[in-house]
Amino acid sequence: VINLYEMAVSGNCYKIRLLLHHLGVTYRRIEVEPGNSGTRSPDFLAKNPIGKVPTIELEPGVFLAESNAILCYFAEGTPYLPADRLERARVMQWLFYEQYSHEPYIAVMRAWKRYFGIPAGREGEVPMRMEKGYEALATMDRELATRPFMAGEQYTIADIALYAYTHVAGEGDFDLQPYAHLRAWLDRVVTQQGHVAINA
Amino acid sequence: VINLYEMAVSGNCYKIRLLLHHLGVTYRRIEVEPGNSGTRSPDFLAKNPIGKVPTIELEPGVFLAESNAILCYFAEGTPYLPADRLERARVMQWLFYEQYSHEPYIAVMRAWKRYFGIPAGREGEVPMRMEKGYEALATMDRELATRPFMAGEQYTIADIALYAYTHVAGEGDFDLQPYAHLRAWLDRVVTQQGHVAINA
Repeated sequence: VINLYEMAVSGNCYKIRLLLHHLGVTYRRIEVEPGNSGTRSPDFLAKNPIGKVPTIELEPGVFLAESNAILCYFAEGTPYLPADRLERARVMQWLFYEQYSHEPYIAVMRAWKRYFGIPAGREGEVPMRMEKGYEALATMDRELATRPFMAGEQYTIADIALYAYTHVAGEGDFDLQPYAHLRAWLDRVVTQQGHVAINA
Repeated sequence: VINLYEMAVSGNCYKIRLLLHHLGVTYRRIEVEPGNSGTRSPDFLAKNPIGKVPTIELEPGVFLAESNAILCYFAEGTPYLPADRLERARVMQWLFYEQYSHEPYIAVMRAWKRYFGIPAGREGEVPMRMEKGYEALATMDRELATRPFMAGEQYTIADIALYAYTHVAGEGDFDLQPYAHLRAWLDRVVTQQGHVAINA
């Protein structure tokens, strides 16, 4: 059985559950706490030296980290990661965009405001992170004005990766109201076969 | 001919040049300034809505963004991106690691200290970015104690992506001296066939 080491509230972990539900792959969820008794413990660092969830155990002792790398692994050979070279490149483009230009703002503000509080000494980062979060939402909205899904005509892991934190951006006090194309895309994602909610 | 829109000093752009040199692919370099007359101009945003370099024009009017997505595109079918499912996943893991846990610290501190100055109001981020940069270097050093290259026994685009800013980390005032395994890896990267320097 596949073991998914995760935190239930994490959007990065939800990405994996969402894809595995689409694919009908069964797995076992193992909740890991943040900090020295969890993701930073010697036991966990032996599984994933980066010390983060999600970490997946593909077979006993074989671990893989980084949410979007895990998406690529499972999506390979399925419609969620196209085989066509350029279509695949577009998916990859938005996966890297998500981790560099979206998650550090949308996901981090949600984590700070809703779950963990702002780390001491980092209060000054909030305006920058809110501004860049809105930049990401505006970029997505402009792109989604031109096509139904982030990487093209089909629902792919680019959508899964970007949906994970976008649909809960309100928990970071981001207002999605101005972004009509983005909101329509959120609705399209929910209608995909095998969709499951983040709190399921 | 392939057009590479870039900034010569950018490590993200150097990644592309390094892989294309390994592959013997010819391309034309087009320098783009940062800001409203360059990467944020309407003309450039029409090429890449994310407004960043590198952006590559694969054929007239067909653009691809995000440095590591461009690496994946060109490395497909070559030894720089293994076909084996798990080996490939390891490469992907380190590519996403680079963009999330390395570049925002190592590359940003280099850009701020050496090239562009610290943006107004963001001076308070410096200690956090230095600390997390050193975390990334320590992680790489621990990993490289166990194998010759980041993703395994072979040199791949994971090495290209991580080499780009690690080898110039000193320009961000990072001291590489404590990281012997990492420094040995830097030397191994330079000996790869077709290697080219960032300022070539």
